[in-house]
Amino acid sequence: MDRLRVGVVGASGYSGAVATRILAGHPRVTLAFATSDRHAGQAVGAHLGLVVDPGVTFVPNATALDQVDACDAVLLATAADVSMRLVPAFAERGKQVVDLSGAFRLAASDYPRWYGLEHSAPTWLDRAHYGLPELFGPPPQGVTIVSNPGCYPTAALLALAPLVRAGLVEPRGIVVDAKSGVTGAGRQTTESFSFAEVDGDVRAYKVLTHQHTPEIVRGLSRLADGVTLTFTPHLLPVARGLIATCYARPRAGVDAAQVQACLRTAYEGAAFVRVVTSEQVMLKRVVGTNLALVGASANEDVVVAVGAIDNLVKGAAGQAVQNLSLMNGWPESLGLDALPRVAP
Amino acid sequence: MDRLRVGVVGASGYSGAVATRILAGHPRVTLAFATSDRHAGQAVGAHLGLVVDPGVTFVPNATALDQVDACDAVLLATAADVSMRLVPAFAERGKQVVDLSGAFRLAASDYPRWYGLEHSAPTWLDRAHYGLPELFGPPPQGVTIVSNPGCYPTAALLALAPLVRAGLVEPRGIVVDAKSGVTGAGRQTTESFSFAEVDGDVRAYKVLTHQHTPEIVRGLSRLADGVTLTFTPHLLPVARGLIATCYARPRAGVDAAQVQACLRTAYEGAAFVRVVTSEQVMLKRVVGTNLALVGASANEDVVVAVGAIDNLVKGAAGQAVQNLSLMNGWPESLGLDALPRVAP
Amino acid sequence: MDRLRVGVVGASGYSGAVATRILAGHPRVTLAFATSDRHAGQAVGAHLGLVVDPGVTFVPNATALDQVDACDAVLLATAADVSMRLVPAFAERGKQVVDLSGAFRLAASDYPRWYGLEHSAPTWLDRAHYGLPELFGPPPQGVTIVSNPGCYPTAALLALAPLVRAGLVEPRGIVVDAKSGVTGAGRQTTESFSFAEVDGDVRAYKVLTHQHTPEIVRGLSRLADGVTLTFTPHLLPVARGLIATCYARPRAGVDAAQVQACLRTAYEGAAFVRVVTSEQVMLKRVVGTNLALVGASANEDVVVAVGAIDNLVKGAAGQAVQNLSLMNGWPESLGLDALPRVAP
Amino acid sequence: MDRLRVGVVGASGYSGAVATRILAGHPRVTLAFATSDRHAGQAVGAHLGLVVDPGVTFVPNATALDQVDACDAVLLATAADVSMRLVPAFAERGKQVVDLSGAFRLAASDYPRWYGLEHSAPTWLDRAHYGLPELFGPPPQGVTIVSNPGCYPTAALLALAPLVRAGLVEPRGIVVDAKSGVTGAGRQTTESFSFAEVDGDVRAYKVLTHQHTPEIVRGLSRLADGVTLTFTPHLLPVARGLIATCYARPRAGVDAAQVQACLRTAYEGAAFVRVVTSEQVMLKRVVGTNLALVGASANEDVVVAVGAIDNLVKGAAGQAVQNLSLMNGWPESLGLDALPRVAP
Repeated sequence: MDRLRVGVVGASGYSGAVATRILAGHPRVTLAFATSDRHAGQAVGAHLGLVVDPGVTFVPNATALDQVDACDAVLLATAADVSMRLVPAFAERGKQVVDLSGAFRLAASDYPRWYGLEHSAPTWLDRAHYGLPELFGPPPQGVTIVSNPGCYPTAALLALAPLVRAGLVEPRGIVVDAKSGVTGAGRQTTESFSFAEVDGDVRAYKVLTHQHTPEIVRGLSRLADGVTLTFTPHLLPVARGLIATCYARPRAGVDAAQVQACLRTAYEGAAFVRVVTSEQVMLKRVVGTNLALVGASANEDVVVAVGAIDNLVKGAAGQAVQNLSLMNGWPESLGLDALPRVAP
Repeated sequence: MDRLRVGVVGASGYSGAVATRILAGHPRVTLAFATSDRHAGQAVGAHLGLVVDPGVTFVPNATALDQVDACDAVLLATAADVSMRLVPAFAERGKQVVDLSGAFRLAASDYPRWYGLEHSAPTWLDRAHYGLPELFGPPPQGVTIVSNPGCYPTAALLALAPLVRAGLVEPRGIVVDAKSGVTGAGRQTTESFSFAEVDGDVRAYKVLTHQHTPEIVRGLSRLADGVTLTFTPHLLPVARGLIATCYARPRAGVDAAQVQACLRTAYEGAAFVRVVTSEQVMLKRVVGTNLALVGASANEDVVVAVGAIDNLVKGAAGQAVQNLSLMNGWPESLGLDALPRVAP
Repeated sequence: MDRLRVGVVGASGYSGAVATRILAGHPRVTLAFATSDRHAGQAVGAHLGLVVDPGVTFVPNATALDQVDACDAVLLATAADVSMRLVPAFAERGKQVVDLSGAFRLAASDYPRWYGLEHSAPTWLDRAHYGLPELFGPPPQGVTIVSNPGCYPTAALLALAPLVRAGLVEPRGIVVDAKSGVTGAGRQTTESFSFAEVDGDVRAYKVLTHQHTPEIVRGLSRLADGVTLTFTPHLLPVARGLIATCYARPRAGVDAAQVQACLRTAYEGAAFVRVVTSEQVMLKRVVGTNLALVGASANEDVVVAVGAIDNLVKGAAGQAVQNLSLMNGWPESLGLDALPRVAP
Repeated sequence: MDRLRVGVVGASGYSGAVATRILAGHPRVTLAFATSDRHAGQAVGAHLGLVVDPGVTFVPNATALDQVDACDAVLLATAADVSMRLVPAFAERGKQVVDLSGAFRLAASDYPRWYGLEHSAPTWLDRAHYGLPELFGPPPQGVTIVSNPGCYPTAALLALAPLVRAGLVEPRGIVVDAKSGVTGAGRQTTESFSFAEVDGDVRAYKVLTHQHTPEIVRGLSRLADGVTLTFTPHLLPVARGLIATCYARPRAGVDAAQVQACLRTAYEGAAFVRVVTSEQVMLKRVVGTNLALVGASANEDVVVAVGAIDNLVKGAAGQAVQNLSLMNGWPESLGLDALPRVAP
């Protein structure tokens, strides 16, 4: 059977590089092309240290659309404004698209406030499936655009959504306190991301203004009315990994056993979500994998639900490949099953 | 003028070692003795790398009370059950005592649940002053016992208490999500605190069960009625430093400017608390110092107040020396003003 | 074609766990059993976070030999004295053995000094092939025991051996200054391996006494006479990765271009060794992979040859699987080609 | 008695900031001015988090000479070409100068090769005292310019020089393999110094070309003829701290006890050098202090001498203040005795 020819636009960023690496080992995929301005002309295999060389050379980002006939599908690891342009361009030519940016995750009216720009392709927003398969299923038949979730929303929604859907917690007044490794911010050349500044440091950023806030609200609002939510991201002195600690008020009579049972039921049989105790949710067990760990504790005043992922894998490139496989009717774990846990 | 002769019990733990180091450089203090089982017989100056040698040799912990006549005051960096015994013993002999354990911070009835033991000296609880001077003042005239606050309560209370006291936030439903370096747990020899396990990892621990929960509630309850609170500590891959991100509902009409102004007024002239924006509160600027950084953001739904300290200094040994100086009528910054910020 | 049934003895140490993980994804292997006292009774797949479950449960270490009929081959991630007993036991029963300990790497007379014990199976020493395939080839036909090299010798020999073999450097007076992540020491529960002690620290250890010294000398002595060598290992504040900086005197007239060309020729076509400049040899590009990076610089006084590996993969478990594949006539990269580089 | 008025040029770099902080706490010094383009107009005390405010505001670097009448001495934390201009300018106006750059450490003929520039003030080279007081004494009476040693030379010379001076080791064929934290490179905004790249990584840099090579050779050549030396620096994933592992051939009959005794004798009574075993030399015990740890091991083939310092303190700002105190006839430990060891 023919392999799917897949291109990656933006393959030198952290997410794009991880996506390219995973695709290069995917048993049903051929890497069709990979774009990167900084590595244009270099061999992808040598740059990524691949043992089996895919025989592809990086081309400049601006030539992405020139590659359209060489591919059946694209992964876009691009900025939101670029994705707003490229998603329609590739989709109109009949290509499958998985977009890793935030360009197709919200309503058009949300973009000026949260992304600081007008949406340039608002009529396409409805055609994109929000690709968090454990909560919202695989892309429906015929859908060819997947909007890949943000890293914080992936962790927060996996921890919280089953509890909101089951009515175990109040949808009002939820708090999401999340902590992420620095690769979540992409490649950085500012002093504030230098080792000497980040090592040993932790701080909150974009307090009350982070663009993932409306994405989490939107995800939960598919499951219950009246969601209000505070989200605070923090920067951690780690390269990869993200943990979200979520607080919600329990409905009357709800206890810890019910909460944990709800999570177990929700993720029974899920290849990439493991339910553990809230204290077993940790970066160490997910970094380098497409796994999410979730767990919850509760007393009469509060439910504490915790989720952890690798921000570059389940929070970006891994989930994108998972969505690509699902869109093609393949097992969702292809290319992701061999990802070895890195933790010693 | 004669120097105060001060002993340190438990000087080989992290807090005790930092306290000993600070006392060795305090201009009004002479180090009277220091106890440590593991370093008994070794010179304190050589062990701590002091340039000016205090001429003291570690003695075994069990001999602490034998030193009573050699000192005017003691700092106890001991476990809670040991402090319950030593605080009365030294106080009855007329010595000033600063206790770094949790033994005299709560009501007697709290100890079985939160510390897993019956309080062995409950009649002494009222005689101890809770030593968070920026909020509750110096020890009153005649008080000779200071209960030094816990690290998490210090950071959380400094960030939250002025807002609760001023009635800017609701006392019900407060969330404190805190993150601490590993020295907060003391010297550790378990695999779970080994470098290979902690590096690159973050996780929550003692979810809904940490003994600092009632201490924070008790601190806020001095300022308002009806406090309820959820506290979740997390372990960070850093040696030192603690940051608490606190969430409370604003009273109607309260805005961000009022919140930040409230903090500025509360800490005007405070030597060891700096008010900055919520995004400027970071470990890097407090580690190695007795400073606390606090800041807050707000919208109509939530107030986010953030506090950061060095868990071993303002969260333990530094604040203990600050309390000792205040108890003796000295400037609170003695011995602490020269602490250089380590951040490059 | 039938899969080879492979067991792992000592599967809860770092090397054993990585080996088990790699074997679980090897296309020609079935995981036959895995021993671990601490995880006995637990499912291997769940413990290691494997997406495809191998359906194996950990059994106690003492029962390793009871599994002999269930396997065709074993990987021993055991202490040297245990391997001295198990290697003959499994080999006598016709099983292939890859031993990750140092038990079969030296002459019998070396063990008292360097390992502190008498060799209990000296007649077996000659039957073991020293498995550094890029230098010494695959196991010869009929050999069923592979002694897997130590982590430091792997990095040092890959960097130095081609230069010694080609006569470009003097065999006398070589210096190997190496730096390794903490997992090289195995799981640790002592304070000196706690995060608070290791983070931010670097120190030399076992100066002039490390047991890998004679192993490096022995490797080089297969290629030239008169080798003398100083080896100093250092502990790094990283979990994984090892870099060896090696110094040797050039033979007269040798220049930098010759040195680098010698390395390129030696590793032409090697799947797992990449020749780069000496300044491009870094942990970041090898951790999580079975790759070694080597490179060299030179002037008239000195040749500086640098090698880097992941101490748990090319320095232990990965090379062991590579040796297993070679012993069975398979491509050496099976199960190792999909190891994604972890570096973002 | 009047305090010495001291200015700092380049006070926003890492070394300049640490120097400013130390001077602000020096009992015989008044901070006269501090220059910084990026912080011009900001209060020094607030920026550095000082408890006692020196009442000084940063002024632009270009105005440094305008401050000449306001000061008695200057510390120059400037680039070599800037120091070549400023050292004569301040010295001609009768000011004491401590220069932290490499501008006055070598012979004029060395600068084109090692610093890539012609020396613009070669006649001033002889007037500068090389300020490594434990080896070369305090500045001689009447000398008003101190050239403060580089970080790598400080550590390497403290470990090696006594052995070379005593004739215990051969001066030919010495190897210095050194490892430094990232602050040694100053403030950095390139991707290669970003946390995501540096964390978990180690690599050699400037192999055979680092400008500290001739400085170490020059230091040793004051003590013995015929010195030849290879120096390789490595970048560590730590913010601060530097360790140099040095290899030299022992003269016939020299043993380990002699070597260690030589170091003990050399540093008897030294406030800032401690002699320990080679395995006790570690970053942890020196970071945040002006201490150097040195120690050595030996067998018949090699002497391994190890030295560790904080690259920003004994390797830069701390030693500069030590030199300033010595130039003024004060105890060398003033302002440095209170530096608390940061290590928990």
